[in-house]
Amino acid sequence: MFSGVSITELSKQDVEDLALGATVLGTGGGGDPYIGKLMALQALERGRKIELVPPEDVEDDAFVVAVAGMGAPVVMIEKLPSGKEAAESLKSLEKYFGRKADYIICIEAGGMNSTIPLATAAELGRPVIDGDGMGRAFPELQMVTFHLYGVSATPMSMADEKGNSVILDTIDNFWAERVARAITVKFGGVAWISIYPMSGKQFKQAAVRNSLTKEIMIGRELRDAKKSGRNPLDALLDATKGFLLFKGKIVDVVRRATGGFARGEATIEGLDEFRGSKLVVKFQNENLIAIKDGEVLASVPDLITIVEKDSAKPITTERLKYGLRVAVLGIPCDPKWRTGEALKVVGPKYFGYDVEYTPVEIAARRSG
Amino acid sequence: MFSGVSITELSKQDVEDLALGATVLGTGGGGDPYIGKLMALQALERGRKIELVPPEDVEDDAFVVAVAGMGAPVVMIEKLPSGKEAAESLKSLEKYFGRKADYIICIEAGGMNSTIPLATAAELGRPVIDGDGMGRAFPELQMVTFHLYGVSATPMSMADEKGNSVILDTIDNFWAERVARAITVKFGGVAWISIYPMSGKQFKQAAVRNSLTKEIMIGRELRDAKKSGRNPLDALLDATKGFLLFKGKIVDVVRRATGGFARGEATIEGLDEFRGSKLVVKFQNENLIAIKDGEVLASVPDLITIVEKDSAKPITTERLKYGLRVAVLGIPCDPKWRTGEALKVVGPKYFGYDVEYTPVEIAARRSG
Repeated sequence: MFSGVSITELSKQDVEDLALGATVLGTGGGGDPYIGKLMALQALERGRKIELVPPEDVEDDAFVVAVAGMGAPVVMIEKLPSGKEAAESLKSLEKYFGRKADYIICIEAGGMNSTIPLATAAELGRPVIDGDGMGRAFPELQMVTFHLYGVSATPMSMADEKGNSVILDTIDNFWAERVARAITVKFGGVAWISIYPMSGKQFKQAAVRNSLTKEIMIGRELRDAKKSGRNPLDALLDATKGFLLFKGKIVDVVRRATGGFARGEATIEGLDEFRGSKLVVKFQNENLIAIKDGEVLASVPDLITIVEKDSAKPITTERLKYGLRVAVLGIPCDPKWRTGEALKVVGPKYFGYDVEYTPVEIAARRSG
Repeated sequence: MFSGVSITELSKQDVEDLALGATVLGTGGGGDPYIGKLMALQALERGRKIELVPPEDVEDDAFVVAVAGMGAPVVMIEKLPSGKEAAESLKSLEKYFGRKADYIICIEAGGMNSTIPLATAAELGRPVIDGDGMGRAFPELQMVTFHLYGVSATPMSMADEKGNSVILDTIDNFWAERVARAITVKFGGVAWISIYPMSGKQFKQAAVRNSLTKEIMIGRELRDAKKSGRNPLDALLDATKGFLLFKGKIVDVVRRATGGFARGEATIEGLDEFRGSKLVVKFQNENLIAIKDGEVLASVPDLITIVEKDSAKPITTERLKYGLRVAVLGIPCDPKWRTGEALKVVGPKYFGYDVEYTPVEIAARRSG
């Protein structure tokens, strides 16, 4: 297609590893990657390719579009996608622009939205760039590094599984979020979107780079630990450069699907060295804040990931339930998220928590 | 533009008369025509033309688009439009189609949506066809005779006063209503739409014909009565071929703006020959049903219009208030609305009233 572009073809194992790593970086949200992974694997089995391109090889004038699912993950599990929805949304945006996307990108490095774009890319024969707009998962459309660099979310397209589609062109990215969220609710809780159309130059400036290879690496380390008998939690902490915030048993989960989001909180009673303490993790699709005995241990934009205590297998918010033995990790976010401007968009205050953001490496060390 | 098309240019007086007649046929809804009328008159003063074309002169292959405001009239009064919104929505739909509309049409013969398209037509220099999709006003997008003839509401466009815009392409007209209504709420209660793109051939088959000249005629009769000293109510009953259902004083008005609609009801205590009786008129933007002492006197799709008792000046639902002396008219709807299929779309049961539709001329005679 283009000259000078170095392409890596993803293997089935890469896709498996990526999906596992994406669940870790998804911090409980983005939807379960399982369905998107299956769709991507099926595409590979049908002889399609998933081509990964490093950001630095992308041409300045390339046309780059993010593909994603939007809505409450808990609904996605019940409303199985056919696999065509995301491709339909991209096609309708391409029709609107009168130009085909040269590259597909992931809006987030989390759950379903890390694997769906791979399936769409394989289906339509477009390469994927190794980078995303978050380096994790976030619940709202403007919560991407693209937004910090002035890239418009719109024109964007939305499609449902019935054949309804919408093109949005809003005055800013907050309006895109507001209107798209209302449409997602009307679509039955899930929409398939193509968003943040941009040039290759914009992507290179604004994206979190190499997040797909990072996902693959995390998944691979977890898999290797299983084989080699290394403690999986240690392997995961190493691979993510994360901090162990807590170990315990889930004793309560409260959740409600409102306004197109899955909101709620999990309460965890301490085990091992954390016995006698309680940790509360609050989420809005993704885990937002971890509070140990009244003290904030970690908050957005840093990553809070809940995993099974022994296997270190990540657990998405919709799978949290009473009795699970879990470990809670805090992982430093991409530096792009730590400016004052960025914290206005994704800091704890935006989500309604009246606390100052403290980088997890500082709070966790202070607590430990 | 086209040969063989006979064009009538509307005068300022025509616009005044049309706006008055449109309020009568608006059955309380469609928004106050005042703002749209002002915009149309201003366009005429700037030297623009409003060209009216009879349906029979429209070419089969012409591209016809309806322009309208959508939402709660009570919000429209507070959020004055700049006059550009409707034109913006049409331009974005034309861009989507890659084709300019040859004719603009009114979706309904009621209130603001009878005058806004005239202003848009004058602004953009497009002729208007003498016909509409209702012959009255109705609250939902699929409640048009176009729908009965299989015309799709989408692709349709929506715009707000801030510069946000949306293109919808839905699987049916009910989905168009559902999604567009949610967007209207997010837009702050009012949206400007371009909808039911169709061919001239489709329009001629599916429209209620000559409704604009009918509006002008009704307005003119009311004006003439004022000058000649004839009883305005008698003049209005003659001009509309309507029936006097009730005279009385409004003693209660309950209203709430929910889900993008202005819903409510007015209770009227009888005066003159109706003394001792009570009439309740329920509305959802438009007046839907008139119940006298527990008996249904008139219901959708027939027209229920409330006017000032002495002047016969029509009163929109948002201007109903305690103490007003009013007369209530029932006017037979266009015959297209009286089939079994049509009644499923706009009959009393669709609006949640468990009564069989009885044509107003039968119910009113039975009661009187």
